[in-house]
Amino acid sequence: MANLKIGVVGCGRIGKLHINNLINAIDGVEVVAVADPMIDKSGAREWCAARGITNVSADFMDIINNPEVDVVFVCSSTDTHCDVSMAAVEAGKHVFCEKPIDYDIAKIKALIAKVEEKGVKFQVGFNRRFDHNHKAVADAVKSGKIGDPHIVIVSSRDPEPPPASYVAVSGGIFYDMMIHDFDMVRYVTGSEAVEISAVGSCLVNPNLQEESGIPDVDTAVVTMKMANGCIAVINNSRQAVYGYDQRVEAFGSKGMASDGNDLVNTTTVMTVDGAVSEKPLWFFLERYNQAFIEQVKSYVDAIVNDKPTVVGVVDGLRPVLMAAAATESCRNGGVYVKVEE
Amino acid sequence: MANLKIGVVGCGRIGKLHINNLINAIDGVEVVAVADPMIDKSGAREWCAARGITNVSADFMDIINNPEVDVVFVCSSTDTHCDVSMAAVEAGKHVFCEKPIDYDIAKIKALIAKVEEKGVKFQVGFNRRFDHNHKAVADAVKSGKIGDPHIVIVSSRDPEPPPASYVAVSGGIFYDMMIHDFDMVRYVTGSEAVEISAVGSCLVNPNLQEESGIPDVDTAVVTMKMANGCIAVINNSRQAVYGYDQRVEAFGSKGMASDGNDLVNTTTVMTVDGAVSEKPLWFFLERYNQAFIEQVKSYVDAIVNDKPTVVGVVDGLRPVLMAAAATESCRNGGVYVKVEE
Amino acid sequence: MANLKIGVVGCGRIGKLHINNLINAIDGVEVVAVADPMIDKSGAREWCAARGITNVSADFMDIINNPEVDVVFVCSSTDTHCDVSMAAVEAGKHVFCEKPIDYDIAKIKALIAKVEEKGVKFQVGFNRRFDHNHKAVADAVKSGKIGDPHIVIVSSRDPEPPPASYVAVSGGIFYDMMIHDFDMVRYVTGSEAVEISAVGSCLVNPNLQEESGIPDVDTAVVTMKMANGCIAVINNSRQAVYGYDQRVEAFGSKGMASDGNDLVNTTTVMTVDGAVSEKPLWFFLERYNQAFIEQVKSYVDAIVNDKPTVVGVVDGLRPVLMAAAATESCRNGGVYVKVEE
Amino acid sequence: MANLKIGVVGCGRIGKLHINNLINAIDGVEVVAVADPMIDKSGAREWCAARGITNVSADFMDIINNPEVDVVFVCSSTDTHCDVSMAAVEAGKHVFCEKPIDYDIAKIKALIAKVEEKGVKFQVGFNRRFDHNHKAVADAVKSGKIGDPHIVIVSSRDPEPPPASYVAVSGGIFYDMMIHDFDMVRYVTGSEAVEISAVGSCLVNPNLQEESGIPDVDTAVVTMKMANGCIAVINNSRQAVYGYDQRVEAFGSKGMASDGNDLVNTTTVMTVDGAVSEKPLWFFLERYNQAFIEQVKSYVDAIVNDKPTVVGVVDGLRPVLMAAAATESCRNGGVYVKVEE
Repeated sequence: MANLKIGVVGCGRIGKLHINNLINAIDGVEVVAVADPMIDKSGAREWCAARGITNVSADFMDIINNPEVDVVFVCSSTDTHCDVSMAAVEAGKHVFCEKPIDYDIAKIKALIAKVEEKGVKFQVGFNRRFDHNHKAVADAVKSGKIGDPHIVIVSSRDPEPPPASYVAVSGGIFYDMMIHDFDMVRYVTGSEAVEISAVGSCLVNPNLQEESGIPDVDTAVVTMKMANGCIAVINNSRQAVYGYDQRVEAFGSKGMASDGNDLVNTTTVMTVDGAVSEKPLWFFLERYNQAFIEQVKSYVDAIVNDKPTVVGVVDGLRPVLMAAAATESCRNGGVYVKVEE
Repeated sequence: MANLKIGVVGCGRIGKLHINNLINAIDGVEVVAVADPMIDKSGAREWCAARGITNVSADFMDIINNPEVDVVFVCSSTDTHCDVSMAAVEAGKHVFCEKPIDYDIAKIKALIAKVEEKGVKFQVGFNRRFDHNHKAVADAVKSGKIGDPHIVIVSSRDPEPPPASYVAVSGGIFYDMMIHDFDMVRYVTGSEAVEISAVGSCLVNPNLQEESGIPDVDTAVVTMKMANGCIAVINNSRQAVYGYDQRVEAFGSKGMASDGNDLVNTTTVMTVDGAVSEKPLWFFLERYNQAFIEQVKSYVDAIVNDKPTVVGVVDGLRPVLMAAAATESCRNGGVYVKVEE
Repeated sequence: MANLKIGVVGCGRIGKLHINNLINAIDGVEVVAVADPMIDKSGAREWCAARGITNVSADFMDIINNPEVDVVFVCSSTDTHCDVSMAAVEAGKHVFCEKPIDYDIAKIKALIAKVEEKGVKFQVGFNRRFDHNHKAVADAVKSGKIGDPHIVIVSSRDPEPPPASYVAVSGGIFYDMMIHDFDMVRYVTGSEAVEISAVGSCLVNPNLQEESGIPDVDTAVVTMKMANGCIAVINNSRQAVYGYDQRVEAFGSKGMASDGNDLVNTTTVMTVDGAVSEKPLWFFLERYNQAFIEQVKSYVDAIVNDKPTVVGVVDGLRPVLMAAAATESCRNGGVYVKVEE
Repeated sequence: MANLKIGVVGCGRIGKLHINNLINAIDGVEVVAVADPMIDKSGAREWCAARGITNVSADFMDIINNPEVDVVFVCSSTDTHCDVSMAAVEAGKHVFCEKPIDYDIAKIKALIAKVEEKGVKFQVGFNRRFDHNHKAVADAVKSGKIGDPHIVIVSSRDPEPPPASYVAVSGGIFYDMMIHDFDMVRYVTGSEAVEISAVGSCLVNPNLQEESGIPDVDTAVVTMKMANGCIAVINNSRQAVYGYDQRVEAFGSKGMASDGNDLVNTTTVMTVDGAVSEKPLWFFLERYNQAFIEQVKSYVDAIVNDKPTVVGVVDGLRPVLMAAAATESCRNGGVYVKVEE
């Protein structure tokens, strides 16, 4: 069977990650074209050439209009995700779109309608669903091993905060960081959030609000009432000095499934001073390295074997709705806010 | 030095536990008298005799009025804790009182005033502060090892629910179960709760409210804004089928301290089906066995060496105020409720 | 049913441990008499009196001849274990004898014959069989969960070495320390050692041989060919600076059962410097505290319900034969030595 | 700086593994030629072509004689390792040689002399030294954290046995399997084995000796006296049904460093039946995947920056001498055999 021909829009950090994985770790695919507005200023042209990719362009429409391209990977800046996706879907391409699709709910809904109309395969880059640990927790819930889920706790903490300038345009912690955890709650509980309460503080950087110019927080706890009765809790911190802390616990009527961090190594040194062991892998590139690959394998499988994608276009909408509710709650003293359907 | 002479009021399960520990595990004390209204109907008289305690009575005032008694252990039914304590303090006795002191805040405040007036040693039975695991978490926070605490998570789940008839008189989950966890949050954070939000459901027993006659829940998550900026979360379930789940995690600016359950044993059996290891110790008698002893050792030390008690009479008030706020929040959709000072 | 009447011979550290446990932790027993040659010089008379034991004596024959005594606990110095036991068995008493029974194989065999003749219940104090962790490993083997055992590894290391003067009379590491591990190998494999090879060095105390006057070692590894084909390995060190290291691993055709140490607590503190957790409990009094109780409960059960004792008089012989073989091997360059049957 | 030009001899499983890693995971290298006697019958020509390698041949001398080639990777059948290496070194190439170099000690010694004469960089493929876990144990020893090593235990068990036909030509368990563990003992202790005792049985396959035609075993325990006084133990099984079991423990005067297996994931499911967690990664391709890459990175670094290789040609000799001693001991009842220097 012929390789899937892939065009990648955006050749920054995440675009390069996908290109490398597509070349080295995924069978049955071929990267045939890359577009990036900075293709000549960023050195991306040379980077691509070293990988045998010579069809490069500064204009993403060159990929949309390329009849050879079967699939478009949308790895451009966040504010362009939805427009590029829309153009690609309109052109009948399959689309893999990095998260979040957009912050504008109307635009996402329009995209959803378009994907349905065109019948293409659309996947959103919620890569953590493909992490070996979290997937095993979700699988345990799905299999019924823990019975009905009653309490789900997602602990998700970054090793170091982004610059305030990033926060200024990201929409804040609920949009740029907790968005992954909202997806995780949906994934693990198999249910939708009905109401959300959020509290937070600036404990990592007390000057965050003034530096970023938005009323954001860097430490947040969100509580959700799920449609199936389960109560879900997410806690986020912008800075866990010991490394990327990524854990999920699902407690239910028949038991509990929980995971731990992947550590740098399993070695322990025990002396009179106690037992010293390793910290978690440093950040998402280390921890979710394999998950980035697995999500694309799953997506390729969905296209090749005509299955639904594991994370569809609708899965791109719900976390944004949750982020909106959490943001509103946090700015209003933690009051419960209904999540738009 | 002469033994401390102890009189025990209440010879039910918890009274017997203390009596046995006082005899077998605590140095420098002597149980000289026991009072219980059911002393003759419950077999308590014989139970005491077998331990060489012959001064028994149905009237707790016999202990209060006994000049030989230095210390009164209040192990009677919850509704009598405050009155017995008040009488004992009034008589100049030191008092160890099982938790909760009372649900009536005015009565507790009167007791606090009386303890201060009389200058006796008063300790409330929040035994979990003396658990080897939780104490190590609190000590790590106190020592500054994790820096300023940002997020504290207390997971506390019983192995089996009490009968609905118990809940009917207990005041509900926030008073009879989470009260310990409220104390734990104060102990670990070293701070007071300012505002509390509570959500809950009847997931263990869907008929709980109707069976108990009160609008209680059996699965609850409480979020607190602490005076020092820390956000604390408690999650409770009336039924963890795998056993007593008692864990504390304190995350801060310099790191994280967290504990795990004590397990039945450390053995793992690994086969083609995976690695099977043990569950937590079944319930509080197993898990907090040593903590019950340690708290009394600490109390005896406070009396003998004239130190402040580790859990004073004020520590009996704050968790009740927190339970009141949580109960109000839970019955009002999770709105944040200020904790009375 | 009437209490078992117990007479204790030897009121040193281990005798006091048993007496306290018999009083506080074992139902259905009563300590009625204690004998110790130092009863008046060591303060043992007063120690017993404080526990209500007034029938004390300097002559163990007072216990042997006491018709009230059902059971004799032999806790005297090692060189008297066999003689006291023999006298007690001859007198028709049940006997619980601390390990080792003796180093003189002929004397042990005579005792075995006498126990059989008299039909009394005899138990040797190999308390580790009653440890929650090791028992679970042995139970996993017995149940067939790991199939046929192929390799068994016992790691057994003390936190601090005994004085050289102790070693001078103890018979050396294979008799005074590894004797427990020889029993553990028999317990876990359910088989007997056929041939033994031992190597060792003085790595903890390079002057040990000259200080003790015997060709002993303080670090030793013993390999055994078991009758069932299993290969067993024991490693001993006189000094694990981090505490008492007591682990057993049984690997077999269907899997592996292994245990870990009991730790001081389960708390971990994770910072930029790594994750620090606790060390093992310090020594045998901490680690095997409950095992000392469980072994006596089991023994009382054997007497009361007329069952075989879990560790019978023959179980006192085999480890001594193994120690003899290991000692011979170690002094001969590690050559395999047949274990006498 | 120009890429190192690499020629690979042998394009079977291990050759392909190295070629893929050299292309995908190692910077600064280029695979310019591949030789394999089966290049046309095995599909290797096409496999190479798909990776852009068109200079392929059936004759390894084409690589030796290729002036473009800087480095030869010897991945051919074991019996040709030494001859191919010798030819490559003679031609002035750097050589990375899969283990074992040979079983003929004289031939290895001749190669050592030749490597010294030519001054090329030679590395043997003991990849486990580059495993994150084992390396951390060795580093802890090297750093002095555990003081002087007293006891080292290497547990090394394969998930499934090779066919008896493989054993027939491999030289047996000490040569084809334990060879890695001999290297590990040298690596971790930083010392050489002086005397070796080996015992073993056919417990996995009772018919192994007759099926293989050699007096081999499938379960073995080896004990070594090291030059620095440390006692080392290796245990091997051809079949751990739960997966690849690879653990190292180093116990010393100041503490212990030990590692655990890498597991499939960190998730635990706890129910009334206990806590079930994952097994180790299945076999060496999964477990040592990254170690295969790290060893080549280290080798490239040694060439590029003119450092000694971490595993030099002499490190290829010592484990073979240890295997010879172990084989002799095992066939002679476990007697200690001196290791040739």
